[in-house]
Amino acid sequence: MVLPTSPLAVAMPDLPPMAGIRLGSAEAGIRYQGRTDLVLVELPAGTTVAGVFTRNRCPGAPVDWCRTALPHGRARAVVVNAGNANVFTGHAGTRAVDATVEAASGLLGCKPHEVFVASTGVIGEVLPHARIVAALPALHASLSADGWEAAARGIMTTDTFPKGTTRTVQIGGATVRISGFAKGSGMVAPDMATMLCFVFTDAKLPPEMLQDMLARGVRRSFNCTTVDSDTSTSDTVLLFATGQAEHPKVGKDDTKLLRPFRDALDALLLDLALQVVRDGEGAQKLVRIDVTGAVSGKSARRVALAVANSPLVKTAIAGEDANWGRIVMAVGKCGEPADRDRLSVGVGGTWMARDGGVVPGYDEGPVVAHMKGREIGITVDLGLGAGQGTAWTCDLTHGYIDINGSYRS
Amino acid sequence: MVLPTSPLAVAMPDLPPMAGIRLGSAEAGIRYQGRTDLVLVELPAGTTVAGVFTRNRCPGAPVDWCRTALPHGRARAVVVNAGNANVFTGHAGTRAVDATVEAASGLLGCKPHEVFVASTGVIGEVLPHARIVAALPALHASLSADGWEAAARGIMTTDTFPKGTTRTVQIGGATVRISGFAKGSGMVAPDMATMLCFVFTDAKLPPEMLQDMLARGVRRSFNCTTVDSDTSTSDTVLLFATGQAEHPKVGKDDTKLLRPFRDALDALLLDLALQVVRDGEGAQKLVRIDVTGAVSGKSARRVALAVANSPLVKTAIAGEDANWGRIVMAVGKCGEPADRDRLSVGVGGTWMARDGGVVPGYDEGPVVAHMKGREIGITVDLGLGAGQGTAWTCDLTHGYIDINGSYRS
Repeated sequence: MVLPTSPLAVAMPDLPPMAGIRLGSAEAGIRYQGRTDLVLVELPAGTTVAGVFTRNRCPGAPVDWCRTALPHGRARAVVVNAGNANVFTGHAGTRAVDATVEAASGLLGCKPHEVFVASTGVIGEVLPHARIVAALPALHASLSADGWEAAARGIMTTDTFPKGTTRTVQIGGATVRISGFAKGSGMVAPDMATMLCFVFTDAKLPPEMLQDMLARGVRRSFNCTTVDSDTSTSDTVLLFATGQAEHPKVGKDDTKLLRPFRDALDALLLDLALQVVRDGEGAQKLVRIDVTGAVSGKSARRVALAVANSPLVKTAIAGEDANWGRIVMAVGKCGEPADRDRLSVGVGGTWMARDGGVVPGYDEGPVVAHMKGREIGITVDLGLGAGQGTAWTCDLTHGYIDINGSYRS
Repeated sequence: MVLPTSPLAVAMPDLPPMAGIRLGSAEAGIRYQGRTDLVLVELPAGTTVAGVFTRNRCPGAPVDWCRTALPHGRARAVVVNAGNANVFTGHAGTRAVDATVEAASGLLGCKPHEVFVASTGVIGEVLPHARIVAALPALHASLSADGWEAAARGIMTTDTFPKGTTRTVQIGGATVRISGFAKGSGMVAPDMATMLCFVFTDAKLPPEMLQDMLARGVRRSFNCTTVDSDTSTSDTVLLFATGQAEHPKVGKDDTKLLRPFRDALDALLLDLALQVVRDGEGAQKLVRIDVTGAVSGKSARRVALAVANSPLVKTAIAGEDANWGRIVMAVGKCGEPADRDRLSVGVGGTWMARDGGVVPGYDEGPVVAHMKGREIGITVDLGLGAGQGTAWTCDLTHGYIDINGSYRS
């Protein structure tokens, strides 16, 4: 199936080279024909690593591997394939990972636990790892410092555009770069929200600090987004720090020195997470749900995600119908504290309902106009406390059914 | 929008008269034109009542009213309208209920708390109760003992067929009847699973016993079904017992005497719940998910509902694809204990995957044939314990998007 590019697509910026990183893609023929489906990233010696993975109880063999390798804290390579998720493949899945890791560590002359792997695609079919092993040497020989877009393209499945972004930021007067790429675009729900995301920085940071910042950033980005409420078995976010930038050493308590970096990382993760939502299967509209007045931030986020996950809210948005009744339903169904008679709902900056009823003299005009746009804003005020939270999703359209009713065929 | 009748539709049987009950419908013009949208049921003096309602935190004014009236334990009338749910309508919603109750109790010469009301349809718009009040006298004058199908039709919204069923059963040698009707067919998820369901029996049972049996029956029927994971603000199941049958008095501890009645009630509730699923918006297939080997029955039910609510599983079924990978994903995402390497998945009686991997030499033939049918059976064995549970759902198709992308228009 050839999918039209999402109308919400954004152009991937040029990601400039980062000292010591070489990357690229190849056609390994794992499942797709006539497109790249294997990505290799080579990292310089001394690179530290952090990772956040799916909370699905049936994770794929690559996730198992990464969890085992992560405590060592060092990385020299990432190998990613698209087309087959290597999930629910039993011992064959473990063997496929082992063979891939062995081939990559042999090529790069590093330890197995310095090789990180990820797979995305169909579940339940054995990964033909011989094709990966066979394709790796030539791929390794072809790596370049400019292979960022090729890498972002090589990990796509039903994605309709490559997703990447970059930031520069200062640490103690020295310029540091963060660049990343990601892919979606179905089976996307919190804990983790995207299937695969790889972020690289030339900052010099120990793995524990990286891990803290990554966990925090993911909580505020990927885990606040949802496409279809289905949590993938392969969700992986990895953050690599090459240590090539020349900035002052950052200690664990140098919070102030590190804050700009942390904020830039947060922004980059949110940027990538929203690119994933923009390419949600069949998405025609990007939807942001802001919840205020909840009893806590956690409660607000749950309410926002309940609205974001409601098929009835999402189909109403697809139909450009500002159906606040369905929003009320979604708020009420999630079990978080809510008082119908204090509840207010707005769309596009216009309150439609206030304190449990329609706003007197409510003029639908500006709301109707807002609903015709590509970016929809929903505001829910619970009127109970000071808790705030935000979630992002896309609408639910015929495109989602088209794609998922025939994914394997 | 004129919807084609669900291919899963079942014919509504003739529901015979029940002593003392008169019912019928009228065109009140609440929202729809050219169809009935108001239903009145008159019950004989001495009728007891039980009820189970939505757990949505933003219930409609009719649900509030029923919860207030229920502790009195007596009923003489039910008034139901379709087209407007009278939800999130503030004081106007309460006034609409009060006016309806006052009109009905005046016509029937009963107390206000003996009148039960329910509304279904669009949320957030004020119910034009004057049209109900105006239509009630003529409707009351036209009631008959044979109005069952008319009543079942009058409460429909996007339902494509009327839903009703009946059972007879013995209590202490005397024949007792139970009859009921219900409507769906979107915004249907557990706690409660259907929007509206009304069940009537001529048994003579105190309200407390009715309530216990109804709560239990709903737990095993409506609360094990889902169409779209969205929990309505109006879900209502009411059970009325007229006491007109001449059976021996049943005490609280006469469990054995009452068991056939309880079993028949359970079966009737499940029958109606499955009719609702069969008419799920856009449904082309009825799906039953049996989970075994869970750590508890509760856990099994949660796993079954996670599979039943997964958009990716439901779209795969719509595409007649026995995509066990998505079933594994859904099992893993719900947070219940599961061990990937003990997990088995079957479709239509054929195991596709066993103990964490594809069944060696798996022959897709019978599974492919099964997936082309109207009734799909999925079996998940977790391999952990003795817990069992079942859930029912329908597939997710273009029809769901068609209906819900333009419900209000």
